This record gives sequence, structure tokens and C-alpha cells, in this order.
Amino acid sequence: MSGNAFGHLFRFTTFGESHGPAIGCVVDGVPARIPLAESDLQVWLDRRRPGQNRFMTQRREPDTVKILSGVFEGQTTGTPIGLLIENTDQRSKDYGEIADRFRPGHADWVYQQKYGIRDPRGGGRSSARETAMRVAAGGVARKVLDALVPGGLVIRGAMVQMGPHAIDPAAWDWAAIEANPFWCPDVAAAQGWETYLDTIRKSGSSIGGIVQVVAEGVPVGLGAPVYDKLDADLAKAMMSINAVKGVEIGAGFEAAALSGEDNADEMRIGADGKACFLSNRAGGILGGISTGQDIVVRLAVKPTSSILTPRRSIDINGAEVDVSTKGRHDPCVAIRAVPVAEAMMACTLADHLLRARAVAR
Amino acid sequence: MSGNAFGHLFRFTTFGESHGPAIGCVVDGVPARIPLAESDLQVWLDRRRPGQNRFMTQRREPDTVKILSGVFEGQTTGTPIGLLIENTDQRSKDYGEIADRFRPGHADWVYQQKYGIRDPRGGGRSSARETAMRVAAGGVARKVLDALVPGGLVIRGAMVQMGPHAIDPAAWDWAAIEANPFWCPDVAAAQGWETYLDTIRKSGSSIGGIVQVVAEGVPVGLGAPVYDKLDADLAKAMMSINAVKGVEIGAGFEAAALSGEDNADEMRIGADGKACFLSNRAGGILGGISTGQDIVVRLAVKPTSSILTPRRSIDINGAEVDVSTKGRHDPCVAIRAVPVAEAMMACTLADHLLRARAVAR
Amino acid sequence: MSGNAFGHLFRFTTFGESHGPAIGCVVDGVPARIPLAESDLQVWLDRRRPGQNRFMTQRREPDTVKILSGVFEGQTTGTPIGLLIENTDQRSKDYGEIADRFRPGHADWVYQQKYGIRDPRGGGRSSARETAMRVAAGGVARKVLDALVPGGLVIRGAMVQMGPHAIDPAAWDWAAIEANPFWCPDVAAAQGWETYLDTIRKSGSSIGGIVQVVAEGVPVGLGAPVYDKLDADLAKAMMSINAVKGVEIGAGFEAAALSGEDNADEMRIGADGKACFLSNRAGGILGGISTGQDIVVRLAVKPTSSILTPRRSIDINGAEVDVSTKGRHDPCVAIRAVPVAEAMMACTLADHLLRARAVAR
Amino acid sequence: MSGNAFGHLFRFTTFGESHGPAIGCVVDGVPARIPLAESDLQVWLDRRRPGQNRFMTQRREPDTVKILSGVFEGQTTGTPIGLLIENTDQRSKDYGEIADRFRPGHADWVYQQKYGIRDPRGGGRSSARETAMRVAAGGVARKVLDALVPGGLVIRGAMVQMGPHAIDPAAWDWAAIEANPFWCPDVAAAQGWETYLDTIRKSGSSIGGIVQVVAEGVPVGLGAPVYDKLDADLAKAMMSINAVKGVEIGAGFEAAALSGEDNADEMRIGADGKACFLSNRAGGILGGISTGQDIVVRLAVKPTSSILTPRRSIDINGAEVDVSTKGRHDPCVAIRAVPVAEAMMACTLADHLLRARAVAR
Repeated sequence: MSGNAFGHLFRFTTFGESHGPAIGCVVDGVPARIPLAESDLQVWLDRRRPGQNRFMTQRREPDTVKILSGVFEGQTTGTPIGLLIENTDQRSKDYGEIADRFRPGHADWVYQQKYGIRDPRGGGRSSARETAMRVAAGGVARKVLDALVPGGLVIRGAMVQMGPHAIDPAAWDWAAIEANPFWCPDVAAAQGWETYLDTIRKSGSSIGGIVQVVAEGVPVGLGAPVYDKLDADLAKAMMSINAVKGVEIGAGFEAAALSGEDNADEMRIGADGKACFLSNRAGGILGGISTGQDIVVRLAVKPTSSILTPRRSIDINGAEVDVSTKGRHDPCVAIRAVPVAEAMMACTLADHLLRARAVAR
Repeated sequence: MSGNAFGHLFRFTTFGESHGPAIGCVVDGVPARIPLAESDLQVWLDRRRPGQNRFMTQRREPDTVKILSGVFEGQTTGTPIGLLIENTDQRSKDYGEIADRFRPGHADWVYQQKYGIRDPRGGGRSSARETAMRVAAGGVARKVLDALVPGGLVIRGAMVQMGPHAIDPAAWDWAAIEANPFWCPDVAAAQGWETYLDTIRKSGSSIGGIVQVVAEGVPVGLGAPVYDKLDADLAKAMMSINAVKGVEIGAGFEAAALSGEDNADEMRIGADGKACFLSNRAGGILGGISTGQDIVVRLAVKPTSSILTPRRSIDINGAEVDVSTKGRHDPCVAIRAVPVAEAMMACTLADHLLRARAVAR
Repeated sequence: MSGNAFGHLFRFTTFGESHGPAIGCVVDGVPARIPLAESDLQVWLDRRRPGQNRFMTQRREPDTVKILSGVFEGQTTGTPIGLLIENTDQRSKDYGEIADRFRPGHADWVYQQKYGIRDPRGGGRSSARETAMRVAAGGVARKVLDALVPGGLVIRGAMVQMGPHAIDPAAWDWAAIEANPFWCPDVAAAQGWETYLDTIRKSGSSIGGIVQVVAEGVPVGLGAPVYDKLDADLAKAMMSINAVKGVEIGAGFEAAALSGEDNADEMRIGADGKACFLSNRAGGILGGISTGQDIVVRLAVKPTSSILTPRRSIDINGAEVDVSTKGRHDPCVAIRAVPVAEAMMACTLADHLLRARAVAR
Repeated sequence: MSGNAFGHLFRFTTFGESHGPAIGCVVDGVPARIPLAESDLQVWLDRRRPGQNRFMTQRREPDTVKILSGVFEGQTTGTPIGLLIENTDQRSKDYGEIADRFRPGHADWVYQQKYGIRDPRGGGRSSARETAMRVAAGGVARKVLDALVPGGLVIRGAMVQMGPHAIDPAAWDWAAIEANPFWCPDVAAAQGWETYLDTIRKSGSSIGGIVQVVAEGVPVGLGAPVYDKLDADLAKAMMSINAVKGVEIGAGFEAAALSGEDNADEMRIGADGKACFLSNRAGGILGGISTGQDIVVRLAVKPTSSILTPRRSIDINGAEVDVSTKGRHDPCVAIRAVPVAEAMMACTLADHLLRARAVAR
């Protein structure tokens, strides 16, 4: 419980800094005899990988993941799965001048205060690079969910707002998210975003965004009230992602303005003879327990604080300085938060699935 | 880790149903020689207690807390603190007719699905009654923080939006919150809310709200990156409160629309020669670690689903029924979420304070 | 993880001091729909209860346990089970003179050093009284095991050595353990012990003993290598019991003197067509995982340090003093460790059973 | 909590199989600014390394450990420390014939039963190879203890019995342990053991042993009653080591035969004006809390089950077979348990030291 692990029964522990020799992860608690290959993880890492287009940091990391343990002849063995990605593109010189200056909006100053030391190269441990291991662990979680949930789950994310520009929910098309560089489900909005983000990018600025993650096919009954509620654990999972400042489930903050009549999802017996809900303002969770409806989570991502415009700050000697960041950065880091948020959803659900199995009757 | 405990080093475990003989709590991890009396807890419980005015459920519980262990001659001994509140006002007959009908928006149906059994009296374990123990544990946490942090902390909450009616942040006056039944810091807004909520109440309806909790005096350096970030743990803490659907820190969802220039809080050296921030859009947390600025958290609370208007639902036999709730309920449950959110803030900070002490140099 | 909880999925947290108003416990993680009544727990508490014969402390506690939550209409609901035993026979005056003197062999001095304060009445938290809640939790664990393991488990303990006097293993008769005040499975040994312990008792002295606990009917496959091995968790469980100084599994310390040929249990196919072992020197556990054979654990219990003979010690002011203990004490506290060790075995197995269910294929 | 991690605040998680590409470890919770280099760990790994003399398995692994993260410019940064050892000498052909036969006394059969699959190469996860990462983690723990405890700790182990041949405690000489291949503190005994073990080795047999670990310089007050007692956690730590079947603290099993007069360690005020004990039958722990005296733990290690003599067993198809093991094995695996037990002592103390700091006043 020292900060670098997530989950309880499905549990992963990560290590590694942005510019160290490697980053890695141990995934523990995976049931045995689940098919698993490096390609099952690589496919998700490739979605997160930087340098794929002009809207991402131009840092180029192949991000090739190796499985070091826990798999024998293509199947998990029930023992911990060691994962490793070697760091190859470490242009530490880009960061030389910020070694003794604290970048506003970054964790530089608080790390220095808390630890009295920090690895300044590329943001060290607080770099978004760490999220690669979340995505790898999420790949393992997806295989666990596929193997244990009949019918399987579909977990996917989309960007629903860039800066002040929100999508039109009525125009939602999941097929569109792979066809633009923003995971945007609204074709028209994506076109507008492209122009908008080019302007941001060229000016050396950055902008925030809102990501939505949806899990379909979640079994009824996941969640451990009252402190390890499924929504509480999802809130923790999402808020732990770099740059996230808000999390909401279902109607979220809009629920504050709703009346009791409008908010509660009514129930009926469906054509298949099973209980069903007539709406999903709950976002798939009631009382901390999954309802079987889609789980819908949104997260607010702040703009990256690495911008060209000089900002007022201080240095390690207590002198007042101006800081601008010339490295390779994302103009809208929310884009790359999409596969990370999907991964954290998958890991949270896998953990709660195992917890539910423990006490199932 | 079976769901009913919160925290790691400062850790509390609760038990009890709405209409059982008692609810209780064990608070473990409290350092020794901290002054503690029942009155230190009762003061906070009294703030949360139902039946204090017409805008709260008329259920009347004295909610008198007893300390059963862990205190000797007025001081903590380092051993676990057992707390107990006996349930006295259990009008179970009010709930008789809902024993076999699932109230929309409540946890009735999912508990039945998950456990195959549920205690229907007053909502059983998922009743807001459980939050009394959170408030009691929060009282212990406050004493821990007072004893260990020089200068002490001030943790207080306010309601900043009722239904669609938000306060004017410019009119914020902490002194006002004790002078109206809503913990509203805006005197003018409070007056409007009174009329508004009377209408809601008389119609048997309900409405949501937004609560803000602020912690002042938090030391720099609390938080355990990267999964047990302070903001991640606060998100979990707040989302675990009944009826909460969203959590945000600092600028929160508004950060999505900000540019990098506008979002990052700049730093200077203050008149006292110490580092200071020129704004607090971060809400007091960077990289998962407290900055020493005020920690600012907001939570969205949905309207209680217990309303007079009949809503479509099903019963335990799979028949379609209409459900209306005639019991004694809060027209705006967000009001009573204020002291609970304060308590969860206190407990989260106490836990992270102990964690920080463990590794301090 | 602050010291007063045991287990992970089946987890109990205890509180309470010897002479406080009550001791209690929260048992979390119990699956739903398991029959449970107070009498299911009382039966085990009655076996542990002091004052039953002249070989036990004459403190008289009815030790009546109340279930405060988690049970509805005779069945568990999946919510935490609150248990409470009120303290009734608190002759604190017996302990008055030891409030400022440290009893040799007791935890008085280290509590004072660690916490800077201690509740001296009856040993406070370090009193054997705490073990009553272990026995109650063990009663819950037995019900869980009965409900989830086809055929059920038999968990029972015996005293196999009192002072220097060991039983004859060849004379083992489980039926005998209820027929003497020592849980001794060897009728002849029990007779000798009676005379022996009378002498000890009358002289105001005390003596140690060895307890053996056996679990029959344990399913194959419990245990989570490599750190949460079943034997590792049993070792922790047993060593956490007051006065225990050693734990061994199967052949235990004798295994040190065995050759590889003599130690390993050979396997064959039994008459029923199933794999079977030809011996059980492993004590039912290999590689940290249960083999399906009887689990056999032994624990060494030191003599109680409360004796009439004055012993050299110091007091709270640093003065050298002599201490003798006149209270009501057990001449051989190992006797009362038997039901406690049984309970810890049951809780450990229940925890690992739930863990195994989580990852079962 | 899925089985492959040890500790809470000082916590390490291991992964890796005997014949996979690598074994590794994440050490989390290490305070910042502690000097740490690979050589600080390598020195302990070299003590454990196989192939150093004829009494160890002739498998030759350089066991070179790499630090992948958590250290910057020679100091820890407070972030997790990733450790990796590549496997180089993987003669998997040696183990080919045991892929479908269960070696008696090994974990083969229970792994197959629990997981339905196992990595048979070299014992897979249950191989003693895993203990290399314990030793590496122990090296980190020693640096933590050195940095945080004034005066530092000395943690060292010795073998005190080989097969039936015990040392003479009166002949104890710590200087001797580096001068013989057995970590034997009794020069005369070591000579006898050499002849004895040669006979065992040449016959293809094996023998057990008893190891003693002593920690000097432990501060008073480590341990978290009542379930996370220091002795309880040490018992778990030691019992989790491969082949260990028994653990005792201080007088251990001999305490069963002692009277209250003989067992309790009396106290006086020493020449330095401080409290002192006149004996150490408690082994440095009372009530689960360290007394400041030497912590003395002994563990019984069974003989390795890999022997040349054919033993009766079964195969994966349920046929009865005979199994003999021709690989490179230790005739007395207790020897190599010495550095592992030292490491587990160091890790347990480091964890409890951090826990004690969290609540210190």
C-alpha cells in the first residue's frame, strides 16, 4: 500500500521513470489458463503510443512490451506476470535546463518538497510515460474479463469535449473514433477540432478536454459497499491518471439539477422477461453495485502545463524565474488519456469481478 | 479489504443497518496520547443529525455516540477505538410495503441481485444512516490532525448549488453557513433556496445539489503517487458517499476548457520569503501531492429517490408495479452530505498524514 | 492495516480492553445467505470461557455475544457483522498496584515505551480477554466453511504437552478431549496432568504447553504463493495469539533431522481412483498450498507471567521493584489457547477459501 | 494482496519463474535520499548464489542485479525501485522428464490441482530461485534500516543444526560463520558437518537443518498489536521461505516446559541508568512489540525433496510412477536459507520501522 499499486485481487504494481532504463509492472492475481501473448498487450499500447500524428508529442518510443513471467505455452499460470518496456528515446538534454527550475502546473515543486530529491529527466516518475504500464495492465485485465464473463465486455473511450468545444451527443458514432486522431465519436466535431488544435499547437499552447469511457456487458452485482463501491473505485482509478481534475458517473454533475422524478431510472420487465431500466442516468451503478446497464464515466483532463509561453515560477535556490517548455509535448493530453482511461476501467472491473466471485453463492 | 473499511494507516471499519439494534465503527491507527472524549465526536454528529428543521427527514435519532475502547483517562492509547450508536427510532412499519418492491434509484434491486437477500428495513446497509459513523470517525480524524499538524487544520463544507440554483462565489461568507439550514455561504442565495425547497418539499419531490469542501492548513507533501494520489483517494472518499455522482478538484471540469496558460498556477516568492502560488486552479494538489494551498473539492449529489410521485418499477416476483415512498425523507439530501463530506476529507487527510510521516526524512 | 484486523477477504477487526465497557469485532467479507445465530458463536465462546474449573482464571465473565448487524431473519446478508460482548466482571482494584509497575514477561513495559501511555487495568489491550473476539469470529468462519465446502470441515485442537509432560501420540483419542479440563487426547496423560497442575496452581506458579490443531476436510488448492502461502498465514495467525512462542506445520522442527527419503510424502492412486499420499509429514501443505490431507499445526505456549513469586522489575519512575501478581490467573494458559487456535485456523481457512474462489476456473 | 508481495509500508512484489527470461521485484515505500547502488544488493546476492562450493547446487547463475528505477544520482527518490536479474543458466532439458510426473515433497501436484497448469521447468514459480529477489529486497531494507536507525542494525544468520547434529551454543563464534561453507558459528561442529554432508551428497540424498537469525540494535517499540505483532509478521516471513516447516522466537518450543519463574525475563536499571533485561527468553519481543533486546528467530528447514533415490509418485495421467531427481540440487538447502532468512528479517523490520514512524509521538 505504498502508492504504486492498483487493485486488490487483480492488482498491478508499476515502476519506472520517464528517462530511466525501463518501465515495468507486475500484474498479480490473474487466474490461470487464460490465453495471453505479448501481442494482446501491444495492440493497446500502440493506440496510446506517442508520435503517431502531429497532435501528439513527437517523442518516438516503440513501446515494445515483453512478458517476463506468468505465462507458459501461451496461457497464464496463476503466477505474477512481469511486464517490461525498455526506454529507448531518452533525450535528456531537452530537460537539462528544467532540472533546477520548477515548471508551473507540474509536480516538480511538490516532489522536491516531499522527497527532497527528484529525477528531473522528463518529469521522472510523474511523467505520463508511466501510463504505458497502465495500458499494458489493462490489456491483461481485458483478457481476464473476456475469459470470465460470458459474452465478454466492450470497453471503449471517446473524447467528448476539446477545450470549449463539445460534441453533439446525438451525432455519436463509435465507428468514427478510429477515423480521426482524437477518438472523437462525432465526425463533424472532429473536423472542427482539427483546425482548432492546429492553432493551439502552432502557438505552443495547450488545451484541456473531457473523455468518456463506456463499459458494455458488465455483469450485475460488481461492487463492494460501502467504501469499495464500484463507482468509488472507478473515481479513484480515473483521478489517479495524470492531469485528471474531475470524474463523474452517469448524469454526474447534471444530477444536481435534477428532481427525484427525473433522476431515478424506472424499471420494467423487458420483452425477454428480464428486469430492465428505462433510462441510465445512474451510469450503470446503484448503491455502489453494477446494474448491468452500460457503465458510463467521464473525466475532465486539464491542459498540459508544458507550453512555450513563459510562466512565472521559482527555482531550486528560491529565485524567481520564468519557465517555458521547449520539449516535445502534447497540445491536448486528453487525447492520450482515452486509452489510459479505458485501461483503468478494465482493471477496476477485473478487480471487482474477482471480488464478486469470492463471495458468490 | 472487504468493502466496509476506509483508509490504510488511519483506518475505520463500519457496520450496521438502518433499523438494526446499533451501528458502529472501529477506528484503528490512531496515535497515542491524543485527547479524545465523546463530546469531541458528538459535536459533529449533532451537525449531521436528522430532524433539526423542516428540510430534513423527520426521523429523530439522538445519535449519541459511545466510545467503547482505545481511550484511557481522556487520551487515546494507540489501540483501536470502538464507537457505537444505538438505533432508537426504528419505525420499521413505514417500510413494510417496500420489502418486496424495488424503489427506483435505490440500491434495493442490485442488493437483491448481488446477495440474494437484503434487509429492507429503512434501506438496510445502504441507508444514509451509515454515514453517521463516517462523521464520528471524521471527528477522531480531526483530533489526530489537530494534534499532529502545527497550527491545525480547518476543514469545512458548504452547499454551493441547490437544484439549478448556484451561489454567487463572490458573495461567499463562511460565517453564513451556520445561519441557514443549508450550509449556504451566500446569504441571498440561501433565502431563495428556502422558498424553492419548500415548494419541492410540499410537492413530495426532491432535488440534487453540489457541495464544496475546503481544507485549510494542509501541510505540503501529503499524497502517495501514483495510484494513491491524494486527489485519487479524495475522489474515492467522496464518491463513496451515498448519492454522490461526481467529484472534482480545484478547477475541475472547467479545466477542460482552459488553456495551458490559464490553467497552471504560477509561483513566486512571497513576502515571507517562502514559495507561494498566485492562483489555485489545482485545488491544492499537484501530481497527487498536496501543495500547501487550500484543498478544494466539489461533489455532485443526486436527488433522493424517495419521492411521493409513483414511479414505475418491478417487485421481487417480477411483476410490474408502481412505487411511491411515504416515509420521512430529505427533500435535498445534499444538505446532509456536507458534514459527511467534511468527515471524509478529514479521514483522508489523516490517513495520508500518517503515511507521509512513515517516510519523512 | 493498523494492526487490529486479521485476514483479507474474510476479515475481522477487533477492539476492546480487558476492563473497558465492552469488547467487539466487525467480521467483513462473509458471503450472503449463510445461516447464522448468536448461539452459533456462543457455543465456541463457552468452550473458551474462564472460570469453568479450578485450572482456569476464576474471573467470571458470562461472555454473552450479541450480533448487531449483518444478519436478517437468521441469514447473513453480505454486509459486515458487528459483534459485541459487554464486560461485566471488572475488578479493576485487583490491578491497582500494578498500574505503575511493569510485570516481567508481560507487555506492560513495551506498551509504555511504544505509546507513552497504557491502560493498566487487567492488561488492557494485551489481555487474553481480546481472544474472546477471535473465538467469536472463528464461529462465523466455521459457518462460512460449512456452507461453502461440500462435506464440511472438522477443526479441532488438543493439548499435547503440559510443561515437560507430553502425551503418547499412540494413545490419541479425540473423544477424550471433552472429558478432561485440558483438551487432552490421551486419557492417561490427562490424569497425570491433573496432579501436576494442582501442584503448580497451589504454589502460585505457572507452566507452558504445546497445542495441536488439526483441520480435516480442507479442499485441495487453498493458499496463495509465494508470500501468502497457507502455512505462512497460519504461522502468523498462531503466533499472533497471546503467549505463543513457536509454530510448526506437520513434521515441523523434526523435519530438520530427516533425510529427503524420509521426509517427502510419497503418492499413489488410492482404491477410489484418486491421488493419495502415503504419509503426512508435510502437515497438509506443500509449496504453500493445501494438499487435501489434514492440516496439522502445533504451537508452543509460554507459561503465564502472572505468578505469586516476586520477580525483579522496575516501575514507571525507573525505580527497581519486585512484582508478584495476586490476581486471578491461569496456571497453564495453554489450555485456553486451544479454542483460540481452533478459531484462528478456521478464520485463516475461510479467508483462503474465498481467495481461492476468486481465481477458480 | 494476491500473494506475491510482502510487507505493507516497506513492500516488495516479486515475479519470475526459475527458467523464464528473468526474475524481478518492485520495492515500494522506500524513503527518499537513502544511498543505494547495485553493489549494495549484489553483496548479499553473492552470499546466496549457488555453485560456490560442493555443498550447493552446481547451477551457475551470476545473479547480477540491475536497478531499473527509483534511484537518481546514487540516492533513492521515494519512487518504486525496480530490480531485475536475468536468468542465464537455464538447462531446461534437465527437467524434461519431470514435466508430467509429480515430484514427491515438491509443489508440482498442488500447483497442477490449483491452477490446472504449471511451468515445470526447474520448479517454475516454486523454485528456490525466487528467493534471490527476497535477498535483493533485503539489501534495500538494510539500507533503509541503516539510514533511519541511529547506530544501525546488525542482522545475521547462522546454521545451528544440520540433520541431527546441533552446534554447541557455548561455542558460538560469529567470526566463524564466514569461514566455513555452512554459516556455522561452531568451528568444531562445522568440521563434523563437512564429513557428514559429503556422505549425504555422494549418496544423492539430502538433509534438513535449523537456522537462527539474530537482529541486534532493533529500536524498542516496533510491532503493531494485536494481529500484526512483530513476532506474528516474522513467523509469516520465515514460514513463507521455501522448505521451512517451523518458526520459533526466543525460547520457542522450549518455553512450553518452563515455569513462569524461569520464563519471564526480569528487569533492572542498568549501569547506564536505563531499563535492562536480565535474560532474553522472550527473543526480543513482548506483546508483539520489540523490547530493544536482540531479536532471535529460529526456523526449521526440511531436506530438499530432490534426491536420487526413486520415490513412489503419480503422473499427470494418473499412473503410478517412480520419480528420482537427477538435476543439480542442494544436499542441505538450509544452508542457502540463511541469507534468505536474514533478508526476510530485514524486510520485516523495515516495514515495522516505517509503521512505527507513522504513529510516533
